[in-house]
Amino acid sequence: ASFAVAAKHDISKLPRVKQQLVDPPFVPEHDQVAKGGPKIVEVRLETIEKLVEVAPGAKVWALTFNGTVPGPLIVVHEGDYVELTLVNPKESTMAHNVDFHAATGALGGAGLTLVNPGEEVVLRWKAVKPGVFVYHCAPGGTMIPFHVISGMNGAIMVLPRDGLKDAKGKPVRYDRAFYIGEQDFYLPKGADGKYKVYDQPAAGMADMLELAKGLVPTHVVFNGAVGAITGDNALKAKVGEKVLFIHSQANRDSRPHLIGGHGDLVWQGGSFSDVPLTSQETWFVPGGAAVAALYEFKMPGLYVYLSHNLIEAVLLGAALHMNVEGEWDNDLMEQLKAPASFNPAAAMDH
Amino acid sequence: ASFAVAAKHDISKLPRVKQQLVDPPFVPEHDQVAKGGPKIVEVRLETIEKLVEVAPGAKVWALTFNGTVPGPLIVVHEGDYVELTLVNPKESTMAHNVDFHAATGALGGAGLTLVNPGEEVVLRWKAVKPGVFVYHCAPGGTMIPFHVISGMNGAIMVLPRDGLKDAKGKPVRYDRAFYIGEQDFYLPKGADGKYKVYDQPAAGMADMLELAKGLVPTHVVFNGAVGAITGDNALKAKVGEKVLFIHSQANRDSRPHLIGGHGDLVWQGGSFSDVPLTSQETWFVPGGAAVAALYEFKMPGLYVYLSHNLIEAVLLGAALHMNVEGEWDNDLMEQLKAPASFNPAAAMDH
Amino acid sequence: ASFAVAAKHDISKLPRVKQQLVDPPFVPEHDQVAKGGPKIVEVRLETIEKLVEVAPGAKVWALTFNGTVPGPLIVVHEGDYVELTLVNPKESTMAHNVDFHAATGALGGAGLTLVNPGEEVVLRWKAVKPGVFVYHCAPGGTMIPFHVISGMNGAIMVLPRDGLKDAKGKPVRYDRAFYIGEQDFYLPKGADGKYKVYDQPAAGMADMLELAKGLVPTHVVFNGAVGAITGDNALKAKVGEKVLFIHSQANRDSRPHLIGGHGDLVWQGGSFSDVPLTSQETWFVPGGAAVAALYEFKMPGLYVYLSHNLIEAVLLGAALHMNVEGEWDNDLMEQLKAPASFNPAAAMDH
Ligand SMILES: [Cu+2]
Ligand SMILES: [Cu+2]
Ligand SMILES: [Cu+2]
Ligand SMILES: [Cu+2]
Ligand SMILES: [Cu+2]
Ligand SMILES: [Cu+2]
Ligand SMILES: [Mg+2]
Ligand SMILES: [Mg+2]
Ligand SMILES: [Mg+2]
Ligand SMILES: [Mg+2]
Ligand SMILES: [Mg+2]
Ligand SMILES: [Mg+2]
Ligand SMILES: [Mg+2]
Ligand SMILES: [Mg+2]
Ligand SMILES: [Mg+2]
Repeated sequence: ASFAVAAKHDISKLPRVKQQLVDPPFVPEHDQVAKGGPKIVEVRLETIEKLVEVAPGAKVWALTFNGTVPGPLIVVHEGDYVELTLVNPKESTMAHNVDFHAATGALGGAGLTLVNPGEEVVLRWKAVKPGVFVYHCAPGGTMIPFHVISGMNGAIMVLPRDGLKDAKGKPVRYDRAFYIGEQDFYLPKGADGKYKVYDQPAAGMADMLELAKGLVPTHVVFNGAVGAITGDNALKAKVGEKVLFIHSQANRDSRPHLIGGHGDLVWQGGSFSDVPLTSQETWFVPGGAAVAALYEFKMPGLYVYLSHNLIEAVLLGAALHMNVEGEWDNDLMEQLKAPASFNPAAAMDH
Repeated sequence: ASFAVAAKHDISKLPRVKQQLVDPPFVPEHDQVAKGGPKIVEVRLETIEKLVEVAPGAKVWALTFNGTVPGPLIVVHEGDYVELTLVNPKESTMAHNVDFHAATGALGGAGLTLVNPGEEVVLRWKAVKPGVFVYHCAPGGTMIPFHVISGMNGAIMVLPRDGLKDAKGKPVRYDRAFYIGEQDFYLPKGADGKYKVYDQPAAGMADMLELAKGLVPTHVVFNGAVGAITGDNALKAKVGEKVLFIHSQANRDSRPHLIGGHGDLVWQGGSFSDVPLTSQETWFVPGGAAVAALYEFKMPGLYVYLSHNLIEAVLLGAALHMNVEGEWDNDLMEQLKAPASFNPAAAMDH
Repeated sequence: ASFAVAAKHDISKLPRVKQQLVDPPFVPEHDQVAKGGPKIVEVRLETIEKLVEVAPGAKVWALTFNGTVPGPLIVVHEGDYVELTLVNPKESTMAHNVDFHAATGALGGAGLTLVNPGEEVVLRWKAVKPGVFVYHCAPGGTMIPFHVISGMNGAIMVLPRDGLKDAKGKPVRYDRAFYIGEQDFYLPKGADGKYKVYDQPAAGMADMLELAKGLVPTHVVFNGAVGAITGDNALKAKVGEKVLFIHSQANRDSRPHLIGGHGDLVWQGGSFSDVPLTSQETWFVPGGAAVAALYEFKMPGLYVYLSHNLIEAVLLGAALHMNVEGEWDNDLMEQLKAPASFNPAAAMDH
């Protein structure tokens, strides 16, 4: 793999593939082990501004890539070239760009991609670091936090060409992968105690940044809204499957936890060139990072995946549901006596 | 060790031991290296609601396991089975349950253990992951953060059958172990500026959760109260002893630090299946995790163990004291000149 | 190296060197690999209280070591002895001392170094742990957070005698090193909405601590002031150079990130006795720690190094600039199409 990353290619002769991006929490079709040498992977991101409901009665002008918060996950292999077409529709009210934490130079590409409404830009960059990485809009000055806390961020996964390895260096493959983008919102309330709704993104900026300076969000959500990944949208898996969870937080620390499961393998900071941690109950995402964790499900039933500040998970929204099918294993857990009245007098005899 | 964990046993034939739980910061008697094969370890947790004083003038209806904040540390070996009897006394006002981060399935057992006042339940689960792990009450919805920030959490240590290993894979044993449970409280004040006292737990719930949404606690304490582990209750050790510190925070990030000492070995996320970090000045506990650190004391005197946000340590309460006996070593530190007036004029001559 | 650390020396016979401390972000001249055996390294720290401007219109009585926030970086090798002369000028208004996280015993030296105005003390201690470590004033009780959040902290780098090693155990050398001290300030405002200015340090203490209990700083800065390391003060490097970034935060968590670059090697908690993480987009500094990261620059241009909570970076001040000279590499990144109007109608044809 390392030759591929180090070598400089005659880029014009490399094979090209168009990657069809999909809405999170899903991830685009991809090979876990690269077939052949480096490729140019073409992706298209469109900067979409739209009014979305974060929670009942709480609307925000979301600034997005491709209309979702977070933006789509991109997947390439180490040594591949990402060829991004960034399109800002003429209906937009603001300039946007993109800073890829996985890229090298020009502020991660932000310095070469600023597009006004009605413009587009094409940037090619080489994925030299394996791991999962945040990308986000960074149009300069106070626009940077404003766009990021308005939802304008996503992630890219740069797989090692020969795929993931476990803590002992053995190849490990996943059966499913999900991309969880955690978003902190800072939504101002009016004098009436209701969340304000603004005419357009810029109208709420001063209020929102003033609130944001307090560093306490009003909402912390997965996939753009409280409860977005519950009910019919709950994640699905089967006992015996290995699931890769890619978790990004572009602005604020998070601590992912899978209730009833574990992080069998956790790549710190999302780096696939490091030995993963194992047997983690809760892991950590420093603000401005994407992290990957793998779990092989052993038991069926409902799982809750959340940020384990339980105030943030339950009161601010940072939780999702997952339904796992399969056979229950009494060796791992068994209810020996169902809840029932006990006789305190008898207990005192003991 | 791995055979023991993977194999399914005829559980009915396994040896049984009752573990006598003790109040933190102490830990139950246990073998560092397992004797024989897997056992069933019986533990009893009682859900006790009681009014406690967190700091002078600040009382809270603590929701507890066995009457302490945090609940007791349980100690087993990888491959053992935990057989929990969870008892909710009829005097309780609320339903409680327990989610073990160390367990697999059923929301860590929370889905099978909800007991109303006057009920009890028995749950057996297998400890398949080595490390230190949080357990906590999680009775659903907003009750989850309410019970956890009211003190209803503890930890379990799942030792590798052959004991702990250092960063080079060599066996390491501790002479003492302490369990530090860090608790964040969010205590509302009345119009008179004094902390409110409620008639019963439910009465304060709405106020407390409203305050908690701001994510800034009024108190962050070890062992349930400011100064609980100081004075006569200070921890004790001797020069030359290795001390294992198990630190849990069920809800909020923490950063343990031992003033005057170090983390010689720190198991990230508390996982004993990973190579520990070494020579740490300060380590990290993501909210919803228990972490273990080992230090061999070299010098006598007073030590302060705290969460090294010094505002939290000194103003909110996250600090404890430790007294270490032994011989001072001038090679490690020596005061060569005691504080004394100096002559600035002479100094300027220099 | 280990012999040097373990052995007790006849200290009186060891060679002595005086280390000339310099103002951050610069670091004193030093050898990356130790020449000869252990030395006594003499350093002098003076406790200077001075009114400084953190941001336009925001002044604080900074409590400092040697007049800068942070204090100077000290550099020694594992096994060396630090001989500190701590001087409190008679013009001071307060007692000060120093707790070295790298030292062993006596609260890191704090218990042996408290000096009143007009006094000095000499303390020698042995550097037995390799890594980067915080030092700070800790004069007891509420004075501890007050002095630390007033700027009274710095760092020491204890290099392995044979220098740094990469993740594969191979020697690695840096071409430049910078010391970034991140400081959180909690500056009270008056009824007029302006930051208060006090006559002397003690006058603002009660206000500042009351604000600090809310745990949300008004300013988070590098080198003592918003924008201190920008413009003419921006850091400088060249393509192909390896730069070591030492980042300390004595009180509060941080998440360093280099926009457009990476952490090629990141020593967690700053420990040089551990295998470094690689390919990190963003790394983590628990409050009360110093951490080191190394990056080999590949591309010229402007870099921004910040704490990647973008609210803290842009609105509170936690950002610095770096200018890198050299040749642009189109293999790593190329703008293929400059931003230009596109034809949405044509795009819809696609
Ligand atoms: Cu944007
Ligand atoms: Cu960024
Ligand atoms: Cu409960
Ligand atoms: Cu939990
Ligand atoms: Cu001081
Ligand atoms: Cu300290
Ligand atoms: Mg879409
Ligand atoms: Mg780079
Ligand atoms: Mg990452
Ligand atoms: Mg008890
Ligand atoms: Mg599990
Ligand atoms: Mg743990
Ligand atoms: Mg100076
Ligand atoms: Mg020490
Ligand atoms: Mg350090």
